[in-house]
Amino acid sequence: MIRLNAFFQVKTDGDKLKAIELGNELVAESLKDNGCVSYGLFTSTTRHDVLMFCETWTDQASLAAHMDSTHFKRIVPLIEALTANGMKLEKFEF
Amino acid sequence: MIRLNAFFQVKTDGDKLKAIELGNELVAESLKDNGCVSYGLFTSTTRHDVLMFCETWTDQASLAAHMDSTHFKRIVPLIEALTANGMKLEKFEF
Repeated sequence: MIRLNAFFQVKTDGDKLKAIELGNELVAESLKDNGCVSYGLFTSTTRHDVLMFCETWTDQASLAAHMDSTHFKRIVPLIEALTANGMKLEKFEF
Repeated sequence: MIRLNAFFQVKTDGDKLKAIELGNELVAESLKDNGCVSYGLFTSTTRHDVLMFCETWTDQASLAAHMDSTHFKRIVPLIEALTANGMKLEKFEF
């Protein structure tokens, strides 16, 4: 299986609200993707501008198909545009 | 290195506030522990009762010392008492 922890920092409170709205849409769509075991967006309780996606995939093929999906290609760039310095993606195989 | 994702579900909104208060105290103390690379508490944007700790440790010895620390032994049981069914701990070595 694959676990992703993807962190990002937003620039303003307004951007944070937009990122959460977009992120929640991505969560809802991604949970329907083949091989998606879990998918969530989380906000830090100590660093007000930090958020993370936490995802679990059954295998690399499912993750690749997800990253090729219309919802991923539409939403992720919109979220990245709201970040201070892009997404920091950390991948774990288990 | 070691990444921990520890998930828990709280029973009430009041318990959530208490868990965040305790969790933030644990974050502040744990960031001072030897070998602690990162340590954060996060709340889900889509599942109102779900939270997660996300931690990174340089090695097992540092993690073990952390789990033997007074702040860990004092705070974690208090947080666990607020959960619906304990902490779900997921550990990744990288």
